[in-house]
Amino acid sequence: MIKELSVPKRTIMTPGPVEAEPRVLRALATPILGQYDPAFFEIMGEVSTLLKTPFETKNKQAFVVDGTSRSGLEAAMFGLIEKGDRVLIPAYGRFGYLFVELAERAGAEIKLIEKEWGETFEPTEVIDTIKEFNPKIVAMVHGETSTGQIQELKEIGHFCRKNGCLFLVDAVATFAGAPVKVDEWCIDIAIGGTQKCLSVPSGMAPITYNERVEECLTDRYQMELGLSDQFRNDHFIQSNYLDLSQIQRYWGAERINHHTEMTSMIYGIHEGLRIVQQEGLEARYARHQLNEKAMMEGLIAMGLTLFGNPKSKMVTVTCVEIPEGVDGEAVRETLLTEFGVEIASSFGSLKGKIWRIGNMGYSSQKANVLQTLGALEAAILLHGGKIHVGKAVAKALEVYHR
Amino acid sequence: MIKELSVPKRTIMTPGPVEAEPRVLRALATPILGQYDPAFFEIMGEVSTLLKTPFETKNKQAFVVDGTSRSGLEAAMFGLIEKGDRVLIPAYGRFGYLFVELAERAGAEIKLIEKEWGETFEPTEVIDTIKEFNPKIVAMVHGETSTGQIQELKEIGHFCRKNGCLFLVDAVATFAGAPVKVDEWCIDIAIGGTQKCLSVPSGMAPITYNERVEECLTDRYQMELGLSDQFRNDHFIQSNYLDLSQIQRYWGAERINHHTEMTSMIYGIHEGLRIVQQEGLEARYARHQLNEKAMMEGLIAMGLTLFGNPKSKMVTVTCVEIPEGVDGEAVRETLLTEFGVEIASSFGSLKGKIWRIGNMGYSSQKANVLQTLGALEAAILLHGGKIHVGKAVAKALEVYHR
Repeated sequence: MIKELSVPKRTIMTPGPVEAEPRVLRALATPILGQYDPAFFEIMGEVSTLLKTPFETKNKQAFVVDGTSRSGLEAAMFGLIEKGDRVLIPAYGRFGYLFVELAERAGAEIKLIEKEWGETFEPTEVIDTIKEFNPKIVAMVHGETSTGQIQELKEIGHFCRKNGCLFLVDAVATFAGAPVKVDEWCIDIAIGGTQKCLSVPSGMAPITYNERVEECLTDRYQMELGLSDQFRNDHFIQSNYLDLSQIQRYWGAERINHHTEMTSMIYGIHEGLRIVQQEGLEARYARHQLNEKAMMEGLIAMGLTLFGNPKSKMVTVTCVEIPEGVDGEAVRETLLTEFGVEIASSFGSLKGKIWRIGNMGYSSQKANVLQTLGALEAAILLHGGKIHVGKAVAKALEVYHR
Repeated sequence: MIKELSVPKRTIMTPGPVEAEPRVLRALATPILGQYDPAFFEIMGEVSTLLKTPFETKNKQAFVVDGTSRSGLEAAMFGLIEKGDRVLIPAYGRFGYLFVELAERAGAEIKLIEKEWGETFEPTEVIDTIKEFNPKIVAMVHGETSTGQIQELKEIGHFCRKNGCLFLVDAVATFAGAPVKVDEWCIDIAIGGTQKCLSVPSGMAPITYNERVEECLTDRYQMELGLSDQFRNDHFIQSNYLDLSQIQRYWGAERINHHTEMTSMIYGIHEGLRIVQQEGLEARYARHQLNEKAMMEGLIAMGLTLFGNPKSKMVTVTCVEIPEGVDGEAVRETLLTEFGVEIASSFGSLKGKIWRIGNMGYSSQKANVLQTLGALEAAILLHGGKIHVGKAVAKALEVYHR
């Protein structure tokens, strides 16, 4: 017989999933409502309204795709790309390459431009490539958790708008933790995350898009055969489950049957977004900035070297080089098993070279920062690293008391 | 400001989503673990083990796809179908046609055979078509919630196995409520549901498959570019998010990064499956049968006519004709708003002609059956229906006291 769940206590300082808001966890336990219950429609409507705050948008369309963050990315890419469409992907980390995976599956003609990991693009580099390649879609990551870098988007977005390209942005790792100004930056479709700065468990992908995108989707809409055989479309979207033209009509006034909405997760995001509303965007971003500063100064005081270009460093992830002669994975294991603190390794060429420390949502709090710095110092020492002892926590406390 | 969630009390007697097990709701509120935390791997492993009981399988592969039930159907279809592959779809209700939507998107050569809604196929009808059409895949629905019919599968499965076709089965509406004998019936890949007979909230699709399927998937595996550029594959699966060859390697010992597992939902299904283990499959199926009998006899005593072929009626859904002169939607609204009881309408040609009453999981219990019969009688009377008064509840009680 398999026993009842009994999970160890953890301080989760990875770039996601992070600790969930206790209020969100309580909301998950709310009893189920039917998917066509007017009381549930009201909750869905409130989620749609609440999503527009962290996206800073007046878009009519704002809802969640029922899957983890990458389901939202795939829905966006597959909704817009038809076979042979030109897609420009400027990649500066693991998640830029995910766009290539998606565009390839959608049959796009792909132009990939690459940047060394730890850097971002100058807007002009992207804009010049748009001029040459003349893409239908430009797909970019806002915050690359793999490298801890954040891409400037406003200038690129404005150029896209003026030149008739659609601008698709992965804001999974910044949503609700750093500004994502969908309207002001001329983003046509943006995808957020739940298990990162929103501190709602993984399982849904917030998404918003404007009328330009809606028009593309509507041109491709096909009603399901099980409902009617009158709405066939030669340009149907290549996924049924992630077909935004259908999901939109399930969330909208039409309420056309598609999937069965994830009731409990909707309760969870409803509460998570209410917390954002109550805290206020500016206060929330300032909290993340303060905790980032304390973490960074603590790490530097310890004698560690931050990774990546400091000018484009993400607030919500701090990447730090593993000191020479230290086994990064052994340190991570000590942190987890002795201290209950989790930090992340990285991907591809950065694996074994850097640690990634998250600073997201409910996990972005003073007690977590102090605990992590103290535990990391002890763990590095245990594994033979040469660092300045007794400096990190004191420095972080100083940041908080300034 | 949007207020805290406050949901009305509901008795949910639709074919899903149904009421969740209170123990499952509590489990959802368990604190988050990281996706690479060994303590979380252990829970994932237990979920995999527990899934094999209701699927009655010894398959190595058993896990959940992170999306609602249809995400599992799409993952299965897209994983197996390559452009031009022959797919036979015998459809006898709404969800059979969903397979057509999926096969069309995968570029299959489709052979659709249809049955009047309310009936199922004779195995020989399907077998004869296999002989003629020689498909690579036969995709069938086990329990059609749209019509309340259950398809006999064993004979078809054995024929497929002997003749080298892959047998793909949608067991969303029967899983954990009626027998789904994956191994005995020679099902190569089966997809279950959570928000139906398992009484776990919507959001995941349990799936299991054997080595024949695993081989097809492995032939199409492509590691993501963000991880390595050494594993390209001309036959890549057309969805990245629903790519079973990748999801398998995230659940398996390789732990190759793909999505971020839905932590809280995993906790929920862990508890839901533990309840199945504790109740026992036979006792669970017997409970569903008893409650079905009470509901059916109650409806008949009221003077209503059951819809569909009684020989192939599903235990977990009862379809009943809306009496002449009665507005079916008005009755449903009265049930919901006055009694807090939800039953379902249907789709396509059956819309407005039948009601569908679920009998699933935690909702399949005596108090719910009695309440629903009493409320339905009162609501039909209120809307001018001519029925036998005072008989239904008494008859159901008699069934329970026999």
